Formats: sequence, structure tokens, C-alpha cells
Amino acid sequence: MNHIKALTDFTASFINEMNKSGITDVVVSPGSRSTPMAMLMAEHPNINLYINVDERSAGFFALGMAKASKKPVALLCTSGTAAANYFPAIVEAEISRVPLLVLTADRPHELRNVGAPQAIDQIHLYGQHVKWFNEMALPEEGESAMKYVTAAARRAVSTSLCKPAGPVHLNFPFREPLIPDLDSLPYQSVKTEVTSIPGVMEGRRQIDPKQVEGLLDLLLHEEEGVIVCGPIDDPEFSKEVIHLAEFLGYPILADPLSQLRSGHESPQIILEGYDAILRSVDAKNELQPKVVIRFGAMPVSKSTMQFMQGLTEASHIVVDSGGGWRDPSSMSTVMIYGGEAEFCKTISAIKNEIARKSGWLSKWQAMNEIAVRNLQEVKAIEEIDEGKIFCELAKLLPNESALFIGNSMPIRDVDTFFFKTNKNITLYANRGANGIDGVVSSALGASVYNEPMFLVIGDLSFFHDMNGLLAARMNELNLSIILINNNGGGIFSYLPQAQHAKHFEKLFGTPLNMEFKAAGELYGASYAKVNDWNDFEVFVSEAANTKGISIIEVPTDRQKNVQAHRKLWNCVSREISDYLKSVE
Amino acid sequence: MNHIKALTDFTASFINEMNKSGITDVVVSPGSRSTPMAMLMAEHPNINLYINVDERSAGFFALGMAKASKKPVALLCTSGTAAANYFPAIVEAEISRVPLLVLTADRPHELRNVGAPQAIDQIHLYGQHVKWFNEMALPEEGESAMKYVTAAARRAVSTSLCKPAGPVHLNFPFREPLIPDLDSLPYQSVKTEVTSIPGVMEGRRQIDPKQVEGLLDLLLHEEEGVIVCGPIDDPEFSKEVIHLAEFLGYPILADPLSQLRSGHESPQIILEGYDAILRSVDAKNELQPKVVIRFGAMPVSKSTMQFMQGLTEASHIVVDSGGGWRDPSSMSTVMIYGGEAEFCKTISAIKNEIARKSGWLSKWQAMNEIAVRNLQEVKAIEEIDEGKIFCELAKLLPNESALFIGNSMPIRDVDTFFFKTNKNITLYANRGANGIDGVVSSALGASVYNEPMFLVIGDLSFFHDMNGLLAARMNELNLSIILINNNGGGIFSYLPQAQHAKHFEKLFGTPLNMEFKAAGELYGASYAKVNDWNDFEVFVSEAANTKGISIIEVPTDRQKNVQAHRKLWNCVSREISDYLKSVE
Repeated sequence: MNHIKALTDFTASFINEMNKSGITDVVVSPGSRSTPMAMLMAEHPNINLYINVDERSAGFFALGMAKASKKPVALLCTSGTAAANYFPAIVEAEISRVPLLVLTADRPHELRNVGAPQAIDQIHLYGQHVKWFNEMALPEEGESAMKYVTAAARRAVSTSLCKPAGPVHLNFPFREPLIPDLDSLPYQSVKTEVTSIPGVMEGRRQIDPKQVEGLLDLLLHEEEGVIVCGPIDDPEFSKEVIHLAEFLGYPILADPLSQLRSGHESPQIILEGYDAILRSVDAKNELQPKVVIRFGAMPVSKSTMQFMQGLTEASHIVVDSGGGWRDPSSMSTVMIYGGEAEFCKTISAIKNEIARKSGWLSKWQAMNEIAVRNLQEVKAIEEIDEGKIFCELAKLLPNESALFIGNSMPIRDVDTFFFKTNKNITLYANRGANGIDGVVSSALGASVYNEPMFLVIGDLSFFHDMNGLLAARMNELNLSIILINNNGGGIFSYLPQAQHAKHFEKLFGTPLNMEFKAAGELYGASYAKVNDWNDFEVFVSEAANTKGISIIEVPTDRQKNVQAHRKLWNCVSREISDYLKSVE
Repeated sequence: MNHIKALTDFTASFINEMNKSGITDVVVSPGSRSTPMAMLMAEHPNINLYINVDERSAGFFALGMAKASKKPVALLCTSGTAAANYFPAIVEAEISRVPLLVLTADRPHELRNVGAPQAIDQIHLYGQHVKWFNEMALPEEGESAMKYVTAAARRAVSTSLCKPAGPVHLNFPFREPLIPDLDSLPYQSVKTEVTSIPGVMEGRRQIDPKQVEGLLDLLLHEEEGVIVCGPIDDPEFSKEVIHLAEFLGYPILADPLSQLRSGHESPQIILEGYDAILRSVDAKNELQPKVVIRFGAMPVSKSTMQFMQGLTEASHIVVDSGGGWRDPSSMSTVMIYGGEAEFCKTISAIKNEIARKSGWLSKWQAMNEIAVRNLQEVKAIEEIDEGKIFCELAKLLPNESALFIGNSMPIRDVDTFFFKTNKNITLYANRGANGIDGVVSSALGASVYNEPMFLVIGDLSFFHDMNGLLAARMNELNLSIILINNNGGGIFSYLPQAQHAKHFEKLFGTPLNMEFKAAGELYGASYAKVNDWNDFEVFVSEAANTKGISIIEVPTDRQKNVQAHRKLWNCVSREISDYLKSVE
């Protein structure tokens, strides 16, 4: 066997087939063992190659790109702990159902578990957290080797995409010498047409009207229902769920990541104030739906989760095209494993006229009006306030832009303060495992496909993935970062831990005391610190038109922030109580 | 059951028993689910608690601390991707045999795999890479629960320590509310004396002289042998292996991490120039030992590895108290699973007088003298040179100090340019998987037990774990960092990839173009850039006496560096050839 020819043909065939199966983006971290794959990827005419030195950041960068492009993205790294650094992003991709193709180079079999350098056990490295693991054969020449490697490429890409989408891991052993023969022009000479094994075409799970006859009776009978839309990413779905809600007279509680708050000319059926509403005991007592229909992943609102948990008499219908078990409260009456848009259509298509009394829906709408009006009082706060940031952003962000939202406090504040808007603003967050890790890189990855991209992130989370910023310069990307610096872990101030002062700052508050201006210098980013709301407006507007990374630091205070939030929520609760007394 | 009492007693008993079993250091990353463990650790009078915000850095920090203290260190994080961030450090600990106790908080069973926030599948999260995984029970009250949890603590700590040492993972589900009762003074009230199950006392594997009779014959018969000492960490060993070598008349090829180059009044039997010697074809032809005795992990020197690989006629004896299979070339004749020091003693104790002709040993020693003398010519280089850094450091480092060495080029340059010294300088590096990740944190962790600590690291590796620097300020640690900035991946210039210019800088060189001065500002570290050797001397001397982090940036040039190294190696080869001709 000609080693170089085998190495070249085998690897090039894989890359070519991977590309034909739909992968155009690869994120490569430098290393030696991965040389044949990296060089042949760089040679491929239809592959965009992004360099990301830190493999942890690289993993999240690929995740963000896959989210925004709605296509699988490949990752490539060398053997050793490099591969272990992908793990956090892989876990996030698994739970948030993002297709990734993880390619790890490995030492050949004779160098494994014998003390050879940079050799770790990479077999099933990510355990149950990938959809498919495959240990690849060593490169070989010949037609059957090409059939094998191209089939593996097709299968890997397809598997990452089939519902529920997720990460797939292929481990490639490579023997030295590692330099492929670029002069043989592999992408012309490789036989790319040996597609005797077909690729995968996956049908959508289609619920039959007959299957849901009983359910229909329930929905037609019960006037008091709600539709809860969590994170979901299906452009078809938005239109259909609005139809369904209007047909049934059920309000939609729309999590920011349902994408229902933006660009829909604000139909009154969509409510965004539910988190504040459901903090009111009176509201919870008054609003006791008999039916809950849920779409998407779990919403961020804890009050909504607790509210649903209390609805022990209600029927809980969970629709999940991915066939999961999204039911942390063990409340589900029935799981519908079918396309979400299709399910909405199936129900809405029933010709029965429903005459709903308007009381149920209008009560929700009135309370939503109260909640939103009171929460918008945040706009009147003159000093810097975390909640107001999101109201201001809704105003300042251009139409057709995108906002990536950090975990912990920012996503909760978006839930509370990002109200419905006619602007088309796509919202992203890593809500699979809700980690504060990898957020900068995820936003940068998403920016490749969705510009202008803004990121709102807390200081702990920004710190955790500062390394991600390097990819911006290396790959000429643009991102405007609103860095909310409350010097530590803001969310803990809302939790019972905050009542125990003795260890609080050391274990939970964890002030970083960092001068983030220097982060700007380190990564060649522009940097500005906000002193007042005028600054904020000017800096955000400028950032949208600035190339590269802009960091806009907004210094806030953890303690004041809790107080301001609680004050607003109390106002909502009080006015809701008054309203409920008035309509008794 | 009283939830708070169960939570408090169960968790406190675990911590108390873990401490009694030998763990005094815990590294905690902030999080909510881990609250009971974190707060009760902070309360424990005999536990030192270190905060490290980024779990990846935290993992390596614990690894470094465990290396330097020679005791297991515990890690604690919350549920979710936080735990996945430990993976690189866990893999390194596995292969380099460092005892770690990894404690991950988890959601209780009813919140797993049902879409609950921050819940990932943590069962066997690290796969085969830990020595023991145990899913803990939910906290309970009562004597049998205390027996269970204390036994688990003893077993976990002991398992991490038994040879080969390594990481152990315990997963703790905790149900809300998560705040323990600190007022009940758990460390007085907890019954700590229920030690009905004894802890572990592990005997050392002791080779019996009768077992090695045949081997002895070989050693007494064969005049031409070498002893190769790779990374090994046993204070007993150094003395015994020198005795053995002198008894047999075999030279010791001493990897820097064998700790044999420092503080032994330079016995002539210890050679450090072997890497350069064995690059000479003439030397390799001349030196064909019939016996190779290896101790410790694989040495860093590639020329030595290749040399041993060529010794197909020799007997290869591998001594490993950890019972591994450290033999990447499949050359081993026999594996000795016994204590290294004990093995040396067993052989040296033989009363037979051996009359060795001096030719074999003196030939090695002469070549070593040639190699070291030529390599020391690096001192004459006036401009900044990577190799010279290590000669200078050997001069500048105080006695009883420690040097942590980055992977890729620094460890290779230490191998080449760090000559024998009477000073006691402990050398550390992460040579399990040889990753460039986590090195800053490992050095900081080691600095807790070994001061003054110096770190020599390349720019890519420094970048990869810059986050690790935060722990210095949070935990008041001191470290002097010599940052060799050749703006990218220096090692690739030595590899065949360097001959292929087309993709070289993009895929392998990967220049970071970072202003590391800003890293100093970001982390409150002192920073200085070296312009000449006078600067270097002044800055290194100052750093040794400076609190906190000192970053000394040494700008170098990848291309010049390769040329300078090759020139020196060629000089060694030429002079060795001349010498061999002269003694023919």
C-alpha cells in the first residue's frame, strides 16, 4: 500500500462526501496529528475553514454557527486533551439539539495506552453525549475503502441532522508521515460518485387527525387553556401556533427564544408579561387553566414553571417533534411526537366553529397589559439599571439584527424586559444546559450567519470564554458585546444563599475585580464604558457599524439590581390584585 | 425525615471523613446546586478552600496542587456543563497518575433527562478516565446513612491514592432547599467515629530476589547497558537508582522530570546530553546497549525514543510500580511491577563484585561532555534565544525553588538546555497527555506547596489558560511566568508541516498577535518585556521577590529558533564523529 496515497485519497474522500452531505463550515484547532484532515480541508474548494486555537471555544463557536446556519458544522482537533476540551460544547449541543460533526485525530492502535505522547483513550470519549460514535479505520487505498469512508461521512452528517439533531463523533487514527499529497489534486481525482449507499432523507412525524380525536374534544370543550412556547427554532411554527391560539382562544406565553416576540406585528394573543404576572399569588389563584399545550424546550421563567407544576387538575399536552421527554414536573398527560407546525395545522384545520366567551383570554391580556406597563417603568430609571438595558436594546437594535443572550441573569432579564416588537430580531441563547461557559464563542459563531449580532453577557460568563474573542480577529468577524459588569455572580443575590452572609461573597458573589478595558487591548477590540444612558445609546449605535469586536461595559450593582427588580414585580402584583378586585 | 438535618449531617459527615482520610485542599467553582457541599466545606476547620471560577482552570489547579503536595485534592462544581469542563484535567490526572477527588453536584433523579435546567447526564460522565465512579444516594439522616457516606469518602480518597493514583468521581444529587444548617455546628455534632469499615493501607509491590535471578545473570553478564529515567516522582528513588547505575556501570539518561539533574552533586553517571548525542548517526551506530532499564513515564526526547526503538537485539526491562504498560515501541522484554526504589535496592544488594571495563561508560561520558559543552555555546548568543533562556534560568533560579515547564517547545528545551546543577530545583510539567491546556493553572496550583515557583510557557499555551491567572488574585498566590512569545505554535517549525508553506501559517503557525501587556493589566499582574539578557536577569531576579503574578515576556522568532537549535545539534554531531574517529 502506498501510505501517502491512501492517506490522501481516504481523507479527501471523507471531506468531499461530508461536504456533499451538507457541511460547508469546519472549525479547526491547530495540532499535528490532525494534519492530513486539516490540510485537505484547507484545499477543498467548497469548505470554509475557521481557525480557533482553544478547543473549548472552538466547540462553542461551531455550535453557534450551526444554530444560526441551521446546518451541521464540523470540528477538527488533534489527539489528547485537545479533544476533551470539546466536551462542554458537545453536551450543550446534545441537549439543545444542534448538529455537530466532531472529528478527532488519534494515534494509531499500536500507540494507544502504551505511554505514547499525546495519546488518551478517545474511544467513546464523550460517552452517551453524542448520537453516534464511530472509530474509523486507518486510511486505505482502493474502491472498497472509498465506499466505506464516504458512507461513514454521509451517515455521520445525516445522523447529526435526524431529529432530534445533535453531535456525532468520528475518531480518525492517522499514522506518520502525516502530510497528504496536495499535488495529486485529490478533489478532481477522487471518485466522488460511488454513492451506492444512499444518503438519509428523514420524513417528518405527522400526527393523523384520527389520532387526536379525543384531544380535539378536550380542546373544543375547555375554554380555559394556555399555550406555552419555550425555545423552538422552526420558521414554519410561529405562524401556525398563532393560528392555533386564535382558533382556541388560548393565550400564548411566549418565551423570548420562541422567536414569537419579534416581527409578528404584535398579535394580542402573544403575551410576554407572564413571568411577572405569575409571581402574583392572586393572579395564580385566578388563572387556573384546564389545558396547557407546550411547544419547544422548557421556558426560562421559573414562576411559569412553578405555575404549571401547580396545575394538577389540568391536561398537559407536550408537543415535541424530537421525541424527547421535556417534563421536569412529571405533569404531562400526553406527549405528541409530531411536527409542531403540523400539529397546530391539524388542530386548526377542524372546521367546528368555537364560540368562546371572551373572559378568559381578555383577563390574561389585561394582566399582561398591567405587567408590561409597570415593567416599562424601568425606562424611567435614570441611573444605570440592568433591566432597563433590555428595553433600551429593543429600541436601539436595528431591524433584521440578532441578539445572543448570556445565561444566568441576562436571559431572565430578556424574559422580563424584552417586550414584543415589530422589528425582526432573532434571539439566541445556549439553553440546553444553561451554562455560562462558551457564550462568547457561540455568539461569534452565530455572527457568521447573522449580522449585525449583539451579545448581552454578564462578567462571569464573559470571563469564562474570553478566549473566544481571538477567533474574531483570526476569522474577521464582527460582534457588539454589551458586558453587564456587576462584578460577580448576580443571580445568587436572588437565591436563598444571599441570606447567609458568612460565606456569600467568597463562594457565590465571587467578585472578579477585572479591568475589562484590558481585554479590549488584548484582543484588539474597541472598548467603551457606559456612564449614563446617553453613552449607552451612542456606544450601541456606533458598535452596530463598527467592524471587529466592540465591548460596551455597563457597570451595575448586584444589590441595587435585586431591589429594583423586586420593586417592579411588587408593583405588578399590587396592580393585578387591584384589577382582580375591580372585576370580581 | 428532616430535610435540612439530613442534608447537613450527610454532607458534613462526608467532608469530615474525606478530611480525615487525607484531603485538606478543595478547589470550588461557584454554583448553586453545590451549595450544601461548598458551605459546609467553608465551615470545616481543617479544610483549605480555593476558589476558581473557570472549572477547566480549577481542574488543572487541583492537579498542580496534588502534584506538589503529593496528596489528593478535591474539586467541587455545580451541575451541568460546569462538570464537563473538568474533563481535560481529569484525563491528564489519569495518565500522569495524580490523585483527584472530583465532586459534582447534580439534580435529583426526578429532574434528570426531563428538560430541567442545568441538568445533564452526569452518570459516568468521564467514562473510563476515572478510576472509580460512584453515584451517591440522596442525603438521609441516621446512623446507617452516616456509615454509608463516610465509607464512600474513605473509599474514594483511598482509591485515588492506590497505585496507580488517579482521579475518582462522586456525583452528589441534592434536592432543594440547598442551604445546610450551619448553626447546628455539624463538625462537633457529627458522629465521626463510626469507622467500622477500615480505611485502605496499600502495601508496596516488593520484587523478591528469587524472581529476578535470571535478570541478575543478564545484568552481571552484560557490560553494555543504559538506564533511562523518565518522569518519576519518588524521593526514595533518586538515591537508589544512582547506586544501581554505579553498581552496574550503566549511564543514566535522565529526563528533566526524573528530578535527577538537580541537587545530586552531579554524579558523573547521570547524563543529560543524550538527546543531542542520539541525533548523531555515528553515535547511534557506536552505542548499541544490550540492556535497557527504564523507570518512570516515557522521556520527552524523541531521539532517545527512536534510539531505543532501534535496539532490537537488546533486553528492555521496564520497571513500573503502577503496573501500567509504558512501551510505545512494543520493545519490552519484561515488565517489573514493583516499587522502583525497591527494585534498585534488590539488584544493588547482590554481593557479587563486578569488574567492568571502563570503556562503555566512559564513552557515554565523553560524548555527554561534548554535547553539554557544545550546547552551552548557546550562552554566547547575544540576541534573545529560546534555548539560552533555560541556561540562564538554571543560573538565576534560587536554590530550593521550583520550575513548571510548558509543553511543546519549553519541555524540549529544558531537556536540551537544562544541565545538571547542585541547586535543588524541582521540575514539573503535565506529561500525561502533554497538552498545552491548563498549564498556567497547574503551575499556580503547584505554587501553593512549592515556592518560589517559576513557569516557562509558550504564547499558545499561556493563551489557552490565561483564565487560570484569576485564581492567583482570588487566593493570594505567587508565580513568576516566563512567557516565551514566538507568536504562534513554535513546535510546528520542527515538523514536516513546515516544508509546506501554502497552509502553514494558517493551520499550524497560527500567530496570535496579542499584546500580553494587557493580560497583566486584566489580572493585576506585574508585566515586563525583555529586550536583552540584562533585562532577563533583572526581571527574573525581581520576580522571585515579588508577590502575586509576574509576567516576563520574552519575544522570540520561530524561524531563527529552529536554525539556532539545528546549528548546535550539528556541532555536537560533528564533534562526536571526530571523537569517535579519534578513539577507533
